[in-house]
Amino acid sequence: MEQRSLEALRDELRQFARARDWEQFHTPKNLAMALIVEAAELVEQFQWLTPEQSQELSPEKLEAVRQECADILIYLTRFADMLGIDLLDAARDKLVINAAKYPALK
Amino acid sequence: MEQRSLEALRDELRQFARARDWEQFHTPKNLAMALIVEAAELVEQFQWLTPEQSQELSPEKLEAVRQECADILIYLTRFADMLGIDLLDAARDKLVINAAKYPALK
Amino acid sequence: MEQRSLEALRDELRQFARARDWEQFHTPKNLAMALIVEAAELVEQFQWLTPEQSQELSPEKLEAVRQECADILIYLTRFADMLGIDLLDAARDKLVINAAKYPALK
Amino acid sequence: MEQRSLEALRDELRQFARARDWEQFHTPKNLAMALIVEAAELVEQFQWLTPEQSQELSPEKLEAVRQECADILIYLTRFADMLGIDLLDAARDKLVINAAKYPALK
Repeated sequence: MEQRSLEALRDELRQFARARDWEQFHTPKNLAMALIVEAAELVEQFQWLTPEQSQELSPEKLEAVRQECADILIYLTRFADMLGIDLLDAARDKLVINAAKYPALK
Repeated sequence: MEQRSLEALRDELRQFARARDWEQFHTPKNLAMALIVEAAELVEQFQWLTPEQSQELSPEKLEAVRQECADILIYLTRFADMLGIDLLDAARDKLVINAAKYPALK
Repeated sequence: MEQRSLEALRDELRQFARARDWEQFHTPKNLAMALIVEAAELVEQFQWLTPEQSQELSPEKLEAVRQECADILIYLTRFADMLGIDLLDAARDKLVINAAKYPALK
Repeated sequence: MEQRSLEALRDELRQFARARDWEQFHTPKNLAMALIVEAAELVEQFQWLTPEQSQELSPEKLEAVRQECADILIYLTRFADMLGIDLLDAARDKLVINAAKYPALK
């Protein structure tokens, strides 16, 4: 499994779903739900921490957080693939919008 | 703004936050909250749709969904950067775990 | 509209949905999505605040937060009604479980 | 533990938190996070179900869903208490707003 790009991850996930007959479950509606469930598992790691504590995680906690990040990226990539969305293009376009909306300080 | 990788996006976001004095707000705790808020804006697009309708979005709805995906990727990238997490590495490692947990059909 | 109990709110919501032909949309799946969307609108009010700031809201912010709480209670009540769940009974039973799981300090 | 009102639940939860020295963690910011985590656990129960399946839960699944509803009500009640919000009043006021925004069919 050699992947160092979102495209490679997308292709991997296509194969993964096909090999498990999961394609029938992967509607955008369902994948959006799965995505927010993973986002909440990330939030759960931080709910009782102070902002300062959230910056100094133990190695075990950091690994748990890293796995939640992975799950979010996995579902986001799969979701975007189902609708033909290029995530990096979308982010680039959104940053242009954001830059106009929130001008930089001089 | 030429970016075709998560690393380029990460660097762009560092600069974006610095230019707006937003670094003070970007603790992992706060960014996890911002991430789930964006995930919910994605969910909102689908809450009253049937699974079938969720696969056939109008161009306007698809563009709204694309922008929500962008926001999620932006906050996920920023979050991961704050904790030194490599998202593609994390996803690759997680897929190994998932493949063992959910064996492929033969 | 005189309601000072969850049962009265439940009845009000039944009538509200019927009068707008919304019953067709109110499956448990869809209502769970609507509920988390409202929960995220609550989270959004707090994402960039310090824990201390979150305790001292301006009157305008407090009113916005109050309305988000209302939306959450509304969808939770409607969701529970669709599945015949009594919320206060469920909470009472859950507190018994929690009390066993997390013993009080002496 | 005899409670058949949100006020009784609120009082119970105050005592519960005090007896465990949890008051220090119960800022509105943290409780909003805990609330959305519970909402996501509800969503998780439905993510791969069709809308129709979500209406016909097995007894085991229904009990799991009931417990998630309880957790949401518990955190919502605790959150509202921390900010002095009366949930039933808030819901009643919100329904007036909603009725004006979404007129009933004749």
